[in-house]
Amino acid sequence: MDSLPPAGLAWIGVDWGTSHMRAYAMAEDGGVAAQASGPGMRSLVGGDFEGALLGAIGGWLGGWRGQRPLPVVLCGMVGSRQGWQEARYLPVPQDLGALGGALTAVDTRDKRLQAFLVPGLAQHDPFDVMRGEETQLAGYLAQDGQADLVCLPGTHAKWAQLRGNRVTHFTTAMTGELFELLSERSILALSMRQGSADEGMDAQAFADAVQQSYHAPQGLMSALFSVRAEGLLRHEDGARARGRLSGLLIGAELAGVRLCAGRRVALIGEPALCAAYRDGLALVGLDGEVMDGRSMVLAGLASIHRQLLHHGLRVAEV
Amino acid sequence: MDSLPPAGLAWIGVDWGTSHMRAYAMAEDGGVAAQASGPGMRSLVGGDFEGALLGAIGGWLGGWRGQRPLPVVLCGMVGSRQGWQEARYLPVPQDLGALGGALTAVDTRDKRLQAFLVPGLAQHDPFDVMRGEETQLAGYLAQDGQADLVCLPGTHAKWAQLRGNRVTHFTTAMTGELFELLSERSILALSMRQGSADEGMDAQAFADAVQQSYHAPQGLMSALFSVRAEGLLRHEDGARARGRLSGLLIGAELAGVRLCAGRRVALIGEPALCAAYRDGLALVGLDGEVMDGRSMVLAGLASIHRQLLHHGLRVAEV
Repeated sequence: MDSLPPAGLAWIGVDWGTSHMRAYAMAEDGGVAAQASGPGMRSLVGGDFEGALLGAIGGWLGGWRGQRPLPVVLCGMVGSRQGWQEARYLPVPQDLGALGGALTAVDTRDKRLQAFLVPGLAQHDPFDVMRGEETQLAGYLAQDGQADLVCLPGTHAKWAQLRGNRVTHFTTAMTGELFELLSERSILALSMRQGSADEGMDAQAFADAVQQSYHAPQGLMSALFSVRAEGLLRHEDGARARGRLSGLLIGAELAGVRLCAGRRVALIGEPALCAAYRDGLALVGLDGEVMDGRSMVLAGLASIHRQLLHHGLRVAEV
Repeated sequence: MDSLPPAGLAWIGVDWGTSHMRAYAMAEDGGVAAQASGPGMRSLVGGDFEGALLGAIGGWLGGWRGQRPLPVVLCGMVGSRQGWQEARYLPVPQDLGALGGALTAVDTRDKRLQAFLVPGLAQHDPFDVMRGEETQLAGYLAQDGQADLVCLPGTHAKWAQLRGNRVTHFTTAMTGELFELLSERSILALSMRQGSADEGMDAQAFADAVQQSYHAPQGLMSALFSVRAEGLLRHEDGARARGRLSGLLIGAELAGVRLCAGRRVALIGEPALCAAYRDGLALVGLDGEVMDGRSMVLAGLASIHRQLLHHGLRVAEV
């Protein structure tokens, strides 16, 4: 823990979600000098967030000789009510250039650090919230992303409409969480476990189910049970049941997003999951462009850090 | 356990579902002479079903003096692959008068009993199965039910189209299981627990959500998350979240059943749940007639027992 700080260390960016914390030592030249990981928000509720952060990045601070505390910019569920401290929500429509001026300062015991939580976004009609994805969207814009519709697949998939630097509207689909609950804890789990033990997914079953659900989303509640009935009556492999369940849910999600034909959609997230969404979009006639989720978080944190410096200077000038 | 058998005992009917077993001592005059309960199928998988049955009804057999074994007619998930023994599925369209001629005999160690499993129904386009509800439908027809659409709400709600004595088509919606998973094990659980600790449901939130979901079922995947967002942004009570979740799911279910306006729907099941469905149907302009689920099971088992006697006599004549 008494090693030297990573070369050129200027600030620390932290992507702290429900299940994982990922910390990045950022160099003055904008590169990642080192990275570390730690426990997610869920395993720390009511506990010592600062201790968990120092457990991950403490080694970088051993020889810290900066004249000021080291800025730490944290995004994700760490800023939720169950997290370290609740960060605010900014309303939509919202210019993402304003995130860095609306950070919530966290009072740390370790005075070598100056920690800030990134605000989330809130929408009131219909009600919706995001925490973490706003940083990826800021990263996408900072890298000159051109799509006006961005999907961030995951446990709770976000779809955001962009105009210029603004998020004008967004919606959240519980697709990932429903897939997990239904495939592991519902009657459908019996069909998932049939046949070979691998966790594969049948591509044809996925494609057929996306089409079915996209064109007849009102049938979703019944179609889900058909996954079990087909498993019982045809003794199908679990890979077919998994493909069908995933396709039914993603098809219903796509039906709800009111996509305009010909629109280009940017997909930001974990590559395999984004690829499934790109396949789903292609089946309904749309192009999806996959962007790496980690790169977008880093670009977003860097953009917010620049905004923070800008606002910090202006505050100093007053 | 050595008490006398209930007066007039002629046969035993058993409604043996996933979570409960309910046994009825049926008198010659058609009345229920005694009743008992026992563990559901789920807690017995791979175990001693006969022992569990005797644990419930053994007291009725102590002084059994019949010249033949006592007929026991069992319906429900006890006849599934995970149950006592797998009973067959009959295909739809299916005359429910044929159930008693397609029973699966179970070889019991206790020769005072002659046990029979009621067959389920299977449909191949789209795939669907039922076990237990076919007996309630037979009971409904035996009591001169006139509706041509019957809904049996529950963990897996069944909707059956009837024509004369036949089931021509049916569909299953996972509404009850989804409500349980989402309200107890998903992110939405946080909103269910807000405010007062009672388990009530806000009627206005339910009504609004039924309408929303019935008229725009393609929005279901997003609307579900709005329950959480509303809880976060408006600090609403759990009763509102429960009403909204229930309404969204039931509204989406109703949208999928392709109801014809003006159609009368019979609702068979647990009274409080049937009342929620009747309210939902009324909101979309349809009349629902609530029938008690237990009465329908008893009428169905009695009808199947009569069919068994009829078939038994014919077999004896050969």
